[in-house]
Amino acid sequence: MDDKWLAEEALKRHREWCGKLDIALRCSVDSDEDLAIAYTPGVAEPCLEIAKDEDLAYEYTGKGNLVAVITDGTAVLGLGDIGPSASMPVMEGKCALFKRFGGVNAVPICVDSKDADEIVDTIWRISKSFGGINLEDISAPRCFEIEDKLIEKCDIPIFHDDQHGTAIITCAAILNAIKVTGRERGKLRIVVNGAGAAGLSITRLMLDMGLGEVTVCDSKGIVYAGNPRNNPYKEAIARVTNLGDQRGTLADAMAGADVFVGVSQRGMVNADMVRSMAKDPIIFAMANPVPEILPDEAIAAGAAVVGTGRSDYPNQVNNVLIFPGFFKGLLSVGATRVTTEMKICAAEALAGVIGPEELSADYVLPHAFESRVADAVSKAVADEARRAGLCRPIHHL
Amino acid sequence: MDDKWLAEEALKRHREWCGKLDIALRCSVDSDEDLAIAYTPGVAEPCLEIAKDEDLAYEYTGKGNLVAVITDGTAVLGLGDIGPSASMPVMEGKCALFKRFGGVNAVPICVDSKDADEIVDTIWRISKSFGGINLEDISAPRCFEIEDKLIEKCDIPIFHDDQHGTAIITCAAILNAIKVTGRERGKLRIVVNGAGAAGLSITRLMLDMGLGEVTVCDSKGIVYAGNPRNNPYKEAIARVTNLGDQRGTLADAMAGADVFVGVSQRGMVNADMVRSMAKDPIIFAMANPVPEILPDEAIAAGAAVVGTGRSDYPNQVNNVLIFPGFFKGLLSVGATRVTTEMKICAAEALAGVIGPEELSADYVLPHAFESRVADAVSKAVADEARRAGLCRPIHHL
Repeated sequence: MDDKWLAEEALKRHREWCGKLDIALRCSVDSDEDLAIAYTPGVAEPCLEIAKDEDLAYEYTGKGNLVAVITDGTAVLGLGDIGPSASMPVMEGKCALFKRFGGVNAVPICVDSKDADEIVDTIWRISKSFGGINLEDISAPRCFEIEDKLIEKCDIPIFHDDQHGTAIITCAAILNAIKVTGRERGKLRIVVNGAGAAGLSITRLMLDMGLGEVTVCDSKGIVYAGNPRNNPYKEAIARVTNLGDQRGTLADAMAGADVFVGVSQRGMVNADMVRSMAKDPIIFAMANPVPEILPDEAIAAGAAVVGTGRSDYPNQVNNVLIFPGFFKGLLSVGATRVTTEMKICAAEALAGVIGPEELSADYVLPHAFESRVADAVSKAVADEARRAGLCRPIHHL
Repeated sequence: MDDKWLAEEALKRHREWCGKLDIALRCSVDSDEDLAIAYTPGVAEPCLEIAKDEDLAYEYTGKGNLVAVITDGTAVLGLGDIGPSASMPVMEGKCALFKRFGGVNAVPICVDSKDADEIVDTIWRISKSFGGINLEDISAPRCFEIEDKLIEKCDIPIFHDDQHGTAIITCAAILNAIKVTGRERGKLRIVVNGAGAAGLSITRLMLDMGLGEVTVCDSKGIVYAGNPRNNPYKEAIARVTNLGDQRGTLADAMAGADVFVGVSQRGMVNADMVRSMAKDPIIFAMANPVPEILPDEAIAAGAAVVGTGRSDYPNQVNNVLIFPGFFKGLLSVGATRVTTEMKICAAEALAGVIGPEELSADYVLPHAFESRVADAVSKAVADEARRAGLCRPIHHL
């Protein structure tokens, strides 16, 4: 796919579609009787039941299979703060993927505010309409505060996909890449370049999974505790990473490392930096649309496993491998919240989709269209929610 | 349909449906190329176009055919303040009718607040996601303030159906009923019983259409200017109704009147009150689920035309005759707002659906399933929007 062709084709197809979503009816409305049941006066009955027990909304309405995909338009793709209206094609696309890959109904909503408290209040006040909320493309560090406050206020799962979806897939990819390169979980030296939403969440999950030691870098170099430049989120991550209190550049951090994870910008990594890593290094260069280092160059410099965000190279790190199945699992058991354990189970399930005999340097992540993916992730999340006792007694599936 | 059967059937069907709506895809997502166009990286192109010109959201997204059906759950059907969650079966039902009768995509949203400003802020902040907003089942007088403020803040049509949908149908019904009874528009004496959202809006539209003189009654009797009990909305209506400054009961008001419009409670009208009206009186007794007077009783007392909210009697005053076509018309031209003229045109178009040769005392309103209704209403609204120059240059149909 040539870039110019793709751009023109995308505009043409979006004009033809004029929206990627439609509403379809699960009920019949073809007679007076149908009308009297789906609408007045019959509809009063399920209303009264839900008024007595709010959880019955999971039986009598579609809430239990409905996710709101919500953004403020401040960090859309690699485009940055393009505003709420301009973010809608992405949100619609995300909703289409929720349905296509997970069978999950999803509606796109943009919030016209950049104030974290206003955004939280707005989302919280409409949250009873949905069974879960997927936050999307909200800039850091506001996205952390918004997610934390919504988790506090709402009794439905809240999931900022740019953080946790990316973290889960990256960890799944690393789990398989260390099998391919003969490494041991727990003994890795990992460098994460990028200390925004994705970078911090990937780092947290890697630590929660006990993959090894992590050093985080941002545009100024290695992140360390006590740096007066640190925002509270960076300071908190600095306290559990870079345990040797190293100072220096990304190149300094990468020397001797086993794994590089890039969620930063094109061209941040060169061949010399790859050569400075441990033998058979693992590179996930996920900057979009152009990775930190191109796979061919990384492999020429000795990388054993390389993944990017692109579909035209092997090992595409694509969030569509997680969010449809993750929410499908949450919704299937009426889960009340998302836990770290669920994310770990999802990462392990995603990695496990590829059997030992299939696994190779060019195949550490399943392809987006492998139909087994969503069900494997969904089952892992649902099982963990049940184990943890975080399911509603009443649910729709 | 026996009441007990209907109640049980409604619960059973709602459980089977588990939601009356599904998301369907307008785009194909069956290959890497599809993914790259509907989602990243191709989706960036329509985003960038909309960032340059916000109105292009009507070309590149589904906003232009998407309505939010929003409630705070304070005045749901005849059930009152049952809360946001319990209102959702009604909102879903409404969305199903939007699609079924108007081809309009609609999503149900409940707002968990009873504060008018909070509700306004919440709706306004998500309003860029939609091409129009249908407010629903919000109690008076808060509903007036909420609608007024949203109209002020938003550049999309805002329509409180309980007010305006009901007003448009009632006026359409009166337009046809006066043909049947040989009356003249402009010379009617009309009594409206009920000074809530529906009653006040019906009264306004009847005056705007020049149907005649109106007297409004509430539970305490005739509404008059200067009554210290009046809220600002009642005081405002009192100044343009009851021009003779009459005091007294509903029975006093009805003596000699041509038309009775009830949006109040069962049993408010008896045979004597009907007999006290002008010859061949017109009765729209729309209290739900039991009308102010049953049709048989009103006809026995001399009523010439009787309508109710029920489908088991002739002349059902059912909002489904208006809102799907009304929004279809607004959206088809990218209308920026709703005007009084649009409501008048819609009422006249709805009345005009029944030709002179078809018109009778038992058929002053079309049936909900008459397919010509939505298109007639839609065309009238779209034509008026064009005439008034309230259309966006860019729109999707």
